[in-house]
Amino acid sequence: MKSKTPSVLIVGLGLIGASLGKALVGRNLAQVYGFDLQEGVSTTAQELGAIHTAVHNAEDLSQIDVVVLAVPVLAIAGALSNFRAIAQQAKAVTDVGSVKGEVVRQVQEAFGEVPANIVPGHPIAGAEKSGVFAANPDLFDKHLHILTPLAHTSEEAVESVQQLWSSCGAEIVTMTVERHDEVLAATSHLPHLLAFSLVDTLARESENYEIFKYAAGGFRDFSRIAASDPTMWHDVFLANKDATLKILRRFQSDLQQLESAIEHDNGDLLKTVFRRAKSARDYFTELLSRRSI
Amino acid sequence: MKSKTPSVLIVGLGLIGASLGKALVGRNLAQVYGFDLQEGVSTTAQELGAIHTAVHNAEDLSQIDVVVLAVPVLAIAGALSNFRAIAQQAKAVTDVGSVKGEVVRQVQEAFGEVPANIVPGHPIAGAEKSGVFAANPDLFDKHLHILTPLAHTSEEAVESVQQLWSSCGAEIVTMTVERHDEVLAATSHLPHLLAFSLVDTLARESENYEIFKYAAGGFRDFSRIAASDPTMWHDVFLANKDATLKILRRFQSDLQQLESAIEHDNGDLLKTVFRRAKSARDYFTELLSRRSI
Repeated sequence: MKSKTPSVLIVGLGLIGASLGKALVGRNLAQVYGFDLQEGVSTTAQELGAIHTAVHNAEDLSQIDVVVLAVPVLAIAGALSNFRAIAQQAKAVTDVGSVKGEVVRQVQEAFGEVPANIVPGHPIAGAEKSGVFAANPDLFDKHLHILTPLAHTSEEAVESVQQLWSSCGAEIVTMTVERHDEVLAATSHLPHLLAFSLVDTLARESENYEIFKYAAGGFRDFSRIAASDPTMWHDVFLANKDATLKILRRFQSDLQQLESAIEHDNGDLLKTVFRRAKSARDYFTELLSRRSI
Repeated sequence: MKSKTPSVLIVGLGLIGASLGKALVGRNLAQVYGFDLQEGVSTTAQELGAIHTAVHNAEDLSQIDVVVLAVPVLAIAGALSNFRAIAQQAKAVTDVGSVKGEVVRQVQEAFGEVPANIVPGHPIAGAEKSGVFAANPDLFDKHLHILTPLAHTSEEAVESVQQLWSSCGAEIVTMTVERHDEVLAATSHLPHLLAFSLVDTLARESENYEIFKYAAGGFRDFSRIAASDPTMWHDVFLANKDATLKILRRFQSDLQQLESAIEHDNGDLLKTVFRRAKSARDYFTELLSRRSI
């Protein structure tokens, strides 16, 4: 692969797919083909320089080195069915879904097994915007990219996928499917659930959203993620049900302790928890200063 | 007061007190005196242009038009005792505490009643930084400032306080003490509790904070307020116990419904809540675009 420019097919040209395309096209790292189920999107992506060639049918393609499925988690099986032969022949097939257990289930649904060239992956790169017009070639720069190969996944496939994302600036981390889904449930899925839930509680509390007039900067930051796409997040919670429920229940039990501390004027417990949280958050801020998330 | 420059005494020269001072001094709106319990702070404030005159003893002052108590909620009674005579003679005394019920209790503790010149107030202006060096003369510009006068508060006192904050760019809103404490419990105190609690749950979940390495931008925004001062927030929850517990319990019950929806694959309920939250958050974003919070 190092000797000649690899060919890459991106299936799904939303924010993530089109950003990957722009990074690859802009740096001349691959011959990039792009497909999107939605009419006109691949042509737009081509015009925006996010892909070299808009693909309208799987039959238009002969051989692809790396296939990237940049579609919602619950659409993986459908995308694989559309590009069955291309995916089977590729050196590697990867994806960008935020629940790896569900991706593995979808691959099994499509193929009856998980072929050795499938390398599940997830860029830890958030953005509130979505769609092809939001594409940003620097989206993955200095961001973590988690790969969750299975025991029988081929090393060559893992290397191809690593090289693809590294060349776009990402820092590769490898872990098991189960660990990924636990980590993301805690650091991403639960915070989104809390933000959606709090904003909804306040909205129902208040006639004409009157209460939001009095909210300040802290609330703005806290609630930003409640502006995320409801359908995508609905998919995530159903797909990552077990890990989300586990950390959600731990959170509910911890929150109940704080409730009880407030009720019984247990100031010491409040201070202990707040200090521990502030110290963890300060550590996180320090981490952030070394990355660009 | 319009004919001559009023004299203002700021007690407590932290972020809020010193920012008010800088706004007044910089715009030549008042003759500003400043006091701080901590050695050296008032001299620093004077050097930074946040006050005209550092006050070291109440006896150094004769007559002040407006006294602003910019100290923590639980320190109001102590501050009033230090400046008893000055506060009694002033046209108006106001404060900046985030729990108005507790401020009223502290005034009663200091004076045995709530004098007619006392106008409880609260600038809705957040900032993560604290202390005199973080002072910012534009902190209140285009921000709401809530006043909660009691039934017997004098109109002249309310007008003096309104004029003071309006002249620094704030937009004045008036409501009852009880409504203020309910509104702030929902829009500020509960979000802080959730952020502290979530960060603590994750920190205890994870050896050496390993989990935070995988958190992305959404978590950064969500958890920012968990870096706030633990002691100040401990005071807030104990001081606003009833209103915080009321909204916290409503939130816990709503969150339990989401937990149950995830457990029983009730995707419709998840989508309904997420959509309602997104629509409220989008309204809030629209509000924000007209203010500068």
